[in-house]
Amino acid sequence: MTDAQNSFPAPKAPSGPLSGIFVLDLSRVLAGPFATTLLNELGAQVLKVERPETGDDSRAYGPFVDGHSAYFAGVNRGKGSIALALDEEEEREILLRLLRHADVLVENFRPGTLEKYGLGYDQLKERFPSLIYTSVSGYGQYGPLSKWPAYDLVMQAMGGVIGITGHPGQPPIRVGASVGDITAGIYTAVGVLAALYDRKTSGKGRRVDIAMLDCQVSLMENLIVAYSANGKVPGPLGSRHASIAPFEIYKTQDSYMVIAAGNDSLFRVLADALEAPQLKDDSRFKTNSLRNQHVLDLKRELEAILAAHTTAYWLAILNKAGVPASVINTVDKLIAEPQVKARNMVVPVDDPHIPGLKVSGNPVKLSGFSEQSSRPAASALDADRAAVLAWLDRRKS
Amino acid sequence: MTDAQNSFPAPKAPSGPLSGIFVLDLSRVLAGPFATTLLNELGAQVLKVERPETGDDSRAYGPFVDGHSAYFAGVNRGKGSIALALDEEEEREILLRLLRHADVLVENFRPGTLEKYGLGYDQLKERFPSLIYTSVSGYGQYGPLSKWPAYDLVMQAMGGVIGITGHPGQPPIRVGASVGDITAGIYTAVGVLAALYDRKTSGKGRRVDIAMLDCQVSLMENLIVAYSANGKVPGPLGSRHASIAPFEIYKTQDSYMVIAAGNDSLFRVLADALEAPQLKDDSRFKTNSLRNQHVLDLKRELEAILAAHTTAYWLAILNKAGVPASVINTVDKLIAEPQVKARNMVVPVDDPHIPGLKVSGNPVKLSGFSEQSSRPAASALDADRAAVLAWLDRRKS
Repeated sequence: MTDAQNSFPAPKAPSGPLSGIFVLDLSRVLAGPFATTLLNELGAQVLKVERPETGDDSRAYGPFVDGHSAYFAGVNRGKGSIALALDEEEEREILLRLLRHADVLVENFRPGTLEKYGLGYDQLKERFPSLIYTSVSGYGQYGPLSKWPAYDLVMQAMGGVIGITGHPGQPPIRVGASVGDITAGIYTAVGVLAALYDRKTSGKGRRVDIAMLDCQVSLMENLIVAYSANGKVPGPLGSRHASIAPFEIYKTQDSYMVIAAGNDSLFRVLADALEAPQLKDDSRFKTNSLRNQHVLDLKRELEAILAAHTTAYWLAILNKAGVPASVINTVDKLIAEPQVKARNMVVPVDDPHIPGLKVSGNPVKLSGFSEQSSRPAASALDADRAAVLAWLDRRKS
Repeated sequence: MTDAQNSFPAPKAPSGPLSGIFVLDLSRVLAGPFATTLLNELGAQVLKVERPETGDDSRAYGPFVDGHSAYFAGVNRGKGSIALALDEEEEREILLRLLRHADVLVENFRPGTLEKYGLGYDQLKERFPSLIYTSVSGYGQYGPLSKWPAYDLVMQAMGGVIGITGHPGQPPIRVGASVGDITAGIYTAVGVLAALYDRKTSGKGRRVDIAMLDCQVSLMENLIVAYSANGKVPGPLGSRHASIAPFEIYKTQDSYMVIAAGNDSLFRVLADALEAPQLKDDSRFKTNSLRNQHVLDLKRELEAILAAHTTAYWLAILNKAGVPASVINTVDKLIAEPQVKARNMVVPVDDPHIPGLKVSGNPVKLSGFSEQSSRPAASALDADRAAVLAWLDRRKS
């Protein structure tokens, strides 16, 4: 399909290992689109197939700039758009023509939805035997809950991460990031890549079936192992390490910070850096084991010292001394971190409607493929229709 | 390399798209080993190269069963083990012999460590031009912080997820799951798979460079986009949806539950299911927009009703009515979920030392590859040495 890509009418993908791969993306909102963004970052061309008139639901999600959704523009940068009414035969025919050239289809409808239009995996697999048909859903394509709707909050609750996040004895708390959707998005890319790799040898397409709940179970890996070994059911884990001290979040004069002094010698370095050498000789704190026994005392002593200055003050001192420590970053501070800049992890999008739009970059750094300093914009709804149809006609399909 | 695999002396990998791929795994603890477990689940053979005497640090992590670390046994199931002293030439020579047959090397030392032994990427790339040399580190292989040590807690703090997790106005809270390590582990698999795919065409190996911090930045995707659009810096996000109500965690008689009634008609269904039809006519709650304006009132009204019964009681009623809702699962309940069982997401390990050991299964479901009902055990430290050496001799290398 490589020559087809040269003239492909959607925005250009960066150069990468998936150059020449064409992804037809019927997915909406986050888990599916996050996956196709990652495939695009690796070089694949992505064409979104959207519902006419409204398009991807997330085109209606704020924040808006001049009437344009920044949410949509971020996660769909670099993707083309065609609007197709899947309930109309003529429009569906365009989708089928596109599928002749597609390597990968990604969809995240509720299981059974595409079957209604004759577009289910079992309905298409013989006609498109090398297509990698990729489905992302809340619960997966089978099992008693497979048709239930998926929400990040519900997945975090059922999957267990909420149950271990928070302070012991206090109400449970949702993880601020959409780990239900995003973890599923990354695993979806794993599935697509594994199938593409396999196809190089077998020539066969596959059904990739990713469930958000399955992905949440994988986040619980160590808890499942520990429970099977000792039968203990953990509640909220707080912010303290289970067996290392000091290793948690501490209050300073103006905010909070993390200090992670993982062994006895680092603890002594910490004590000196805080100008509190008496901590080194304190019989409660001589070893990691003793510090764990007296972890609340230790926190009290440390916070009494930390209260005298700001996080920025302490961070400069601890960094200089070589004690692992960090500010609790807010998004503005994260973007400004020199390490984040050095890794090109926040990149501008050349969006005509949202000046200054920035997105997270590609965490998969591969030698021999260059980092690009910006990303092309998302297409407006159906913007690539004429070019896509002309491209199909040129390919006589 | 396929024929070599047939007699490969480590535990057998499940059949999968990576059958025939040989991964030499020098990584320790979690981010690297999580990645190689995922590659193993996809069919790759994994041989751990460990430090003599103590091995992978996590062999010393609890919980222990009969002196064996369940933590280690879980994340390293199905992997072989050889202990090699990398500072001794003779032992290093064994590693170099193994590298002739390896497709992928995975390591998560602090950047610069392997260079000291002549085993850095630049030192090996010409000798092993098709090797996929994969490094996972806290901050990546370049940038001002690249040599800093990596801890999940520090990554969560610097990467921003702690700063948005918690209740507004209250102390920040760590995410209970090790999302710093695990997200990096999944992205590492993405990088390895992308490089393997590319190698099928190019014949070339690559350096895969994964930074835990980069992966945390990717979790912040929507926050970066929103901040670039509106300049607002969010603090802890609580457990409530930003624009939908009711959509949060509510207290019941005995615990907490999630209710996610995403639109007006679901809200009316919810009111009826709770036998509180008056909520439908309440002028504060007529539309989603109004419910957002009066979200604290709404929570008070709902919790007054929910206080009368247990979570299990309400869950049965809401599920029957079709209102998305969930218990906040603990690990024992998660394992028992019929959907989790149907998806084979908790699987036993045939571990001779830890009877009943269970691990999270493979969330990447691919048609044409069968699910296995158990996993082989992890190898004891250096257990595969003799077999590996004999295998190398048979291959005259």
